[in-house]
Amino acid sequence: MIRVTVWNEGRHEKTNEHIKKLYPEGMHAVIAKYLKAQGMEARTATLDDPEHGLTDDVLAKTDVLLWWGHMAHHEVKDAIVEKVYNRVLDGMGLICLHSAHFSKIFRKLMGTTCNLKWREIGEKERLWVIEPEHPIAEGLGEYVEIEHEEMYGERFDIPDPDTLVFVSWFQGGEVFRSGCCYYRNQGKVFYFRPGHESYPTYHNETVLKIIANAVRWAAPVKGPQITFGNRQPLEKVEVS
Amino acid sequence: MIRVTVWNEGRHEKTNEHIKKLYPEGMHAVIAKYLKAQGMEARTATLDDPEHGLTDDVLAKTDVLLWWGHMAHHEVKDAIVEKVYNRVLDGMGLICLHSAHFSKIFRKLMGTTCNLKWREIGEKERLWVIEPEHPIAEGLGEYVEIEHEEMYGERFDIPDPDTLVFVSWFQGGEVFRSGCCYYRNQGKVFYFRPGHESYPTYHNETVLKIIANAVRWAAPVKGPQITFGNRQPLEKVEVS
Amino acid sequence: MIRVTVWNEGRHEKTNEHIKKLYPEGMHAVIAKYLKAQGMEARTATLDDPEHGLTDDVLAKTDVLLWWGHMAHHEVKDAIVEKVYNRVLDGMGLICLHSAHFSKIFRKLMGTTCNLKWREIGEKERLWVIEPEHPIAEGLGEYVEIEHEEMYGERFDIPDPDTLVFVSWFQGGEVFRSGCCYYRNQGKVFYFRPGHESYPTYHNETVLKIIANAVRWAAPVKGPQITFGNRQPLEKVEVS
Amino acid sequence: MIRVTVWNEGRHEKTNEHIKKLYPEGMHAVIAKYLKAQGMEARTATLDDPEHGLTDDVLAKTDVLLWWGHMAHHEVKDAIVEKVYNRVLDGMGLICLHSAHFSKIFRKLMGTTCNLKWREIGEKERLWVIEPEHPIAEGLGEYVEIEHEEMYGERFDIPDPDTLVFVSWFQGGEVFRSGCCYYRNQGKVFYFRPGHESYPTYHNETVLKIIANAVRWAAPVKGPQITFGNRQPLEKVEVS
Repeated sequence: MIRVTVWNEGRHEKTNEHIKKLYPEGMHAVIAKYLKAQGMEARTATLDDPEHGLTDDVLAKTDVLLWWGHMAHHEVKDAIVEKVYNRVLDGMGLICLHSAHFSKIFRKLMGTTCNLKWREIGEKERLWVIEPEHPIAEGLGEYVEIEHEEMYGERFDIPDPDTLVFVSWFQGGEVFRSGCCYYRNQGKVFYFRPGHESYPTYHNETVLKIIANAVRWAAPVKGPQITFGNRQPLEKVEVS
Repeated sequence: MIRVTVWNEGRHEKTNEHIKKLYPEGMHAVIAKYLKAQGMEARTATLDDPEHGLTDDVLAKTDVLLWWGHMAHHEVKDAIVEKVYNRVLDGMGLICLHSAHFSKIFRKLMGTTCNLKWREIGEKERLWVIEPEHPIAEGLGEYVEIEHEEMYGERFDIPDPDTLVFVSWFQGGEVFRSGCCYYRNQGKVFYFRPGHESYPTYHNETVLKIIANAVRWAAPVKGPQITFGNRQPLEKVEVS
Repeated sequence: MIRVTVWNEGRHEKTNEHIKKLYPEGMHAVIAKYLKAQGMEARTATLDDPEHGLTDDVLAKTDVLLWWGHMAHHEVKDAIVEKVYNRVLDGMGLICLHSAHFSKIFRKLMGTTCNLKWREIGEKERLWVIEPEHPIAEGLGEYVEIEHEEMYGERFDIPDPDTLVFVSWFQGGEVFRSGCCYYRNQGKVFYFRPGHESYPTYHNETVLKIIANAVRWAAPVKGPQITFGNRQPLEKVEVS
Repeated sequence: MIRVTVWNEGRHEKTNEHIKKLYPEGMHAVIAKYLKAQGMEARTATLDDPEHGLTDDVLAKTDVLLWWGHMAHHEVKDAIVEKVYNRVLDGMGLICLHSAHFSKIFRKLMGTTCNLKWREIGEKERLWVIEPEHPIAEGLGEYVEIEHEEMYGERFDIPDPDTLVFVSWFQGGEVFRSGCCYYRNQGKVFYFRPGHESYPTYHNETVLKIIANAVRWAAPVKGPQITFGNRQPLEKVEVS
């Protein structure tokens, strides 16, 4: 059973009436509920929990971590980011949602600014499947339409994804690499674009299905225990 | 349950006493037996079977096809290659083993000559895991050692793999990209280097484990039904 | 001085009055004229020339070949395709324009069907630059707008590009990977989407600039002379 | 004319008699001299210079920065690393040599630990060319042999390179991705493995040629001026 922790900044849902109505218990609650219904073990954690809810114990028991943040990226403690970073390199999957493109953890793992263009007028987004044989595309149609979303536009300052699963079309004229897979040491990272707080995106069944697919893809593989450092030769070496 | 067909040219095992001793029922039989023990449905097919054992019915019931060929690539009928090709693009996984780098089907899917350097003195090969988080590396150590193998050396004329899982070291001084993943439309292709007919490579438990991992990775995903051709606009378009 | 051959099917310009008016001497003539003005040596060749204008001598003297074809892909002789293919693997650059996605040579080099969605209502295309540091993006703005073009839409059945330089937005709701770089043995291949015969796309200064950039990128590098086949060991090997 | 700054930690050459003899004026001096002979403008800078020799003025005038560091990575000031980082994202090329795999700047740009296996017994390294058509392979043979080098072995904890140009073979039994290209926003990064301080590697003509090739590849392209942030729609959007 995959053990998921859904992390959410959780501020918009407290401070904004409209958003509170959309997600009375927070976006994390909606996502966690769906993942549980898929047979996963899912807990939640938020910025305002002690240690942001990401204690050593929680991280040790997390196979895949979901991350949603926006207005308070700077409040996430560097020490916690460092722990999450080490867990990802050690095998924990990480799924960064929407405005988490600008989270400390995503930027640290990408090595770039992760900057982009944006616009918030609630226009239509259509995510086209670019790699139909990828497990994250399981059960989808050729595209996913979201009636109202924030626009994110290229150029998105990220490294070329190891696999590009979705590209988005926006009504206002932009495109965006909206589903991006990365390998980082023993961990897997997926960036998934949709999910602006002021729209009911995480109530969309297809969006949730993609998140569940991504969790399954990002779950750790029991691969080789990688070791680093000084090594004896494996073969006889005679140096002249 | 994944349905596998292990295809083998099957000639060396008939014509060479040494190889017959190594694989009395053919290399395909050894591999199929292992895959069955892993809970897969595995059948075999060989060049000398009618239609090379790859009838429409067999192909339709095959989730992942393994391919071993060497001395008789040119005897594989183009019509059968075409059928296999279409099935791969349609979602069937394909695992090309060792000298299948020069098979018609692999070359057709790669678009290059797939040529390489080689030497047959039975030297040592060591396959290093390059992407430890990849499902094909599950359950392995940091490297796999094969005491006696044919050497394959770079430059290997293939497209840059979508994921490079193994790189081999050879005693005589060469390196080789020996585990290469490719996406081809709705299908997945894995090239895996080891398996020269005159060595007991397919009796090696770790080699077999890698093949089973590859089968699981290459098994079809029920992704979108992709359609091509003329399309009505999804949005209202006014052309000036 | 880079030696370019601009190959064009050249049929639409003969049979359609509207297209004849747009390109009285053929699309190839317009492109070749621009490349000459950039200091390149540029000749042209068409389907109806003897040997399609691609004699051994012409191919031997061509550093980069441009290819435009549409209605008569099937009339291109396989023997000529084979020669072009071998020249590409041997180092000649190849730039496939627009409907050349379905040319024999492009499909052979890709290993996939290269199929796609399309629509011809003359809608707007906007090509976004995805990799601004790539030489093919030299001198461009953040996007290129083409007022009237045929639509090509995903899923485009190609291998994941080695570098994805452009992604197109279309008014009718689709996206497309419209600038794709590939390495194929010692040759480089660039697919560039725009250029439907019934629009003045090849009179567009920015489109021409991109083509010239692509020619410079695809021009051969005097890299290692690659050899294949049986090899003596480079190191002393003692096989037990 | 490409403007290069060759940055070197420069400590080993001062504190170790053997290394002082190999590089009396420092490794940076040898490399800079070669690049000048290739028609480039090359200056040097070292850790012990004020601001590590990397003032705003120097960085502004640098098209490509070379970086060699080893024993004193931690002494490089974070503020300088930040400036170099921003310049790379802004278009400056960066070439990280040998033990610079562990420099702050390389790790920051990669997003991973960049850890590896190593051994210092002066064994033989053979770098095989994997992408012969890449500009960094210009003028080379099929492989480059270095009689005595430190070993670096996989698993090398880096993101999958955008282009993998070299893979090394080591006498003691390891392999290593020894020539790795990365795009990072508007800048290009090349990691090149050879160059341990106690061997005369930077006196090797072929090693120097590769460095010069890499400088030419990494030199900035005048691509689009990328902008980020809030955007007006490019198309008329009516939101229901």
